[in-house]
Amino acid sequence: MHFADALPLQSGASIRAYDLSYETYGMLNADKSNAVLICHALNASHHVAGIYLDDAGAPVPRSEGWWDTMIGPGKPVNTDKFFVIGVNNLGSCFGSTGPMQTHPDTGEVYGADFPVVTVQDWVDAQARLLDALGIQTLAAVMGGSLGGMQALSWTLQYPDRVRHAVVVASAPNLTAENIAFNEVARRAIVTDPDFHAGHYGRHGVLPQRGLRIARMIGHITYLSDDVMNEKFGRQLQAPTLVVSRAFGGTLPLAEDKGVLRLRPGEAGSVAPAGEEGTPPKPVASPFKYSTQEVEFQIESYLRYQGDKFSEYFDANTYLLITRALDYFDPAAAHGGNLTQALAQASAKFLLVSFTTDWRFSPARSREIVKALLDNQRDVSYAEVDAPHGHDAFLLDDPRYLGVVRSYFESKVAPC
Amino acid sequence: MHFADALPLQSGASIRAYDLSYETYGMLNADKSNAVLICHALNASHHVAGIYLDDAGAPVPRSEGWWDTMIGPGKPVNTDKFFVIGVNNLGSCFGSTGPMQTHPDTGEVYGADFPVVTVQDWVDAQARLLDALGIQTLAAVMGGSLGGMQALSWTLQYPDRVRHAVVVASAPNLTAENIAFNEVARRAIVTDPDFHAGHYGRHGVLPQRGLRIARMIGHITYLSDDVMNEKFGRQLQAPTLVVSRAFGGTLPLAEDKGVLRLRPGEAGSVAPAGEEGTPPKPVASPFKYSTQEVEFQIESYLRYQGDKFSEYFDANTYLLITRALDYFDPAAAHGGNLTQALAQASAKFLLVSFTTDWRFSPARSREIVKALLDNQRDVSYAEVDAPHGHDAFLLDDPRYLGVVRSYFESKVAPC
Repeated sequence: MHFADALPLQSGASIRAYDLSYETYGMLNADKSNAVLICHALNASHHVAGIYLDDAGAPVPRSEGWWDTMIGPGKPVNTDKFFVIGVNNLGSCFGSTGPMQTHPDTGEVYGADFPVVTVQDWVDAQARLLDALGIQTLAAVMGGSLGGMQALSWTLQYPDRVRHAVVVASAPNLTAENIAFNEVARRAIVTDPDFHAGHYGRHGVLPQRGLRIARMIGHITYLSDDVMNEKFGRQLQAPTLVVSRAFGGTLPLAEDKGVLRLRPGEAGSVAPAGEEGTPPKPVASPFKYSTQEVEFQIESYLRYQGDKFSEYFDANTYLLITRALDYFDPAAAHGGNLTQALAQASAKFLLVSFTTDWRFSPARSREIVKALLDNQRDVSYAEVDAPHGHDAFLLDDPRYLGVVRSYFESKVAPC
Repeated sequence: MHFADALPLQSGASIRAYDLSYETYGMLNADKSNAVLICHALNASHHVAGIYLDDAGAPVPRSEGWWDTMIGPGKPVNTDKFFVIGVNNLGSCFGSTGPMQTHPDTGEVYGADFPVVTVQDWVDAQARLLDALGIQTLAAVMGGSLGGMQALSWTLQYPDRVRHAVVVASAPNLTAENIAFNEVARRAIVTDPDFHAGHYGRHGVLPQRGLRIARMIGHITYLSDDVMNEKFGRQLQAPTLVVSRAFGGTLPLAEDKGVLRLRPGEAGSVAPAGEEGTPPKPVASPFKYSTQEVEFQIESYLRYQGDKFSEYFDANTYLLITRALDYFDPAAAHGGNLTQALAQASAKFLLVSFTTDWRFSPARSREIVKALLDNQRDVSYAEVDAPHGHDAFLLDDPRYLGVVRSYFESKVAPC
């Protein structure tokens, strides 16, 4: 959808005119009371549910929406009852106006000149989309992680337009450690020589090295230590048996820069004497003894994730979205008092957190719950004992999905 | 000290001839029974205690050894009683033979050709140093983090040569998450275009971008979330008040790439009308709204740490030392059974861990304690409730220092 009116931003800047990509699922009812807005996190999009079909009507492989376990006909957010809207945020790279798009005045790609956007700005843009769709009040606004921050911000910026807010695996602001991880990721991107101060597009290159590192860091923080140990542990990538042997200093080592490697075929051809006359013992080692080759499965997994991400995600978008995370802090305008900040909210709330999520720990969700209870708001809270860390909010955990289902069925269901 | 005999390495390779930098403190007693070997972690050196004096005999500023709180006259490891040895490990960059040194056969700097070394190799090299110093048995071997792994490995490789092992903030091996952080750091270095496959020396450059990122990642994992929040929280770097104002879409925005910033002096000179005729509200914002400038103090701190590190630390050494961490796993040769692995140890043990250390958590130390107890070994264990995360092992915590002091006074003290 195209918006011709400029959007004023929290920074004091403005976006002159813009497009928002969105998808809808289900039918808007007659009194327009069954709309559910889904807000996305860092690298997701408006494609929250369902699959795409190709021209022949066949399913496109791996085209499931990012929250397809949660949203659809008969699912916890039941599109037989609710009209669900997914929208790609401003500054992202999946169709909505962002750094990869052309500035209407200059005819040049925005690149680094795209203005910094905040959670509040996204909510303002989403509200305009609802205006255009003729929806005054949301049955619910819902999101996980950064998406949960948007859901929370909706209840503060547009309290009269939200009946329910579902805030999953989120936080009232980032901790110093969260900001630190974001900052390292940003520095990896910005110091990539292919970044060109954000105008890599003009140079025909992409800062993929930086994006890979950023994604690898992100991935570590999305998983729990436990689930990483369970999935990968110390398992080796391709266990190959290299027979090596300890030996003394009597061999000519000039070749191969002083490093003599004895591989299975060679082992018999040299017979060095041990240091003190003891014969060297062949030692079966599963390692390649390399600092750059993959040894452990976790390394291979992370490299793969980094490579894949660097092929489809825009570096300037990564900078913008991590910054929006850093900035979000509704309590700041109230001297850090979250209770005071959330006094503006009149929605009913469901909060969900996951025990092993160390990026947005349950303690952070409990801060929101406490502040809402201090204001006598209607709050449901579930702390799900899931092993998957922050990623749990995207996974198919029956208890988690059950909590959301029963909340929607019993509380949100349109009258 | 120069070693003319080649050192066989675990990989099957060998180092032809090498030097080890070391320092000693205190006096070796007549029966050579009071020697304490200190093993260092990732970025430290042989300079474990004391300060340096310049030619005029004046103290060199900031030249304190890295464990100066722990080691010295009257300190927990009392150099009035003990003869303390600090040694820089092979492959490091503080004087011992490593990637920055010249290969004796080729006359070229090793660079990436320096062989991969392991904890076991370091212990072997340290044992040769002790041989050269005429020391058969150590009163104690001691280290924190990776240094603790070396201390543990001493008790397995040379059980008859160690009376006590002091293993601080360490682990019997790295978890998948630990390896993951190491791998991201290595990828940041290796993919820096100035890395040149490890032969940056020949190109007259240094992969400082990669080293900065590596160090920033490391630093995050050395600190606890709590101490980061306490030290930095969400505090801004240089709180400057930028008066910005939200405004509608009626202004010419061609200049400055569609982004109009209203700064204090300019605010009066434009008077845009609000979207629906409401006057725009000036909003006091503490932010610069930039993805690349520093906003938060934690960002500035991390950048500073990264910059400093990239000026003195060698990139190839970083790769080697993180790999040695990855590889260490004494239980692997026993099918993962740590109890069986530690059956070889005959030393008495002190283990110390710190409650907020999430890099080498107390649970990892307890694994070692349990395996030693299963073998009926003499083990003392202290879990110190310190807020500083992994870094705590280097800090001046009186309870921690007290535990080590009393262990040395009551158990290690030379007869």
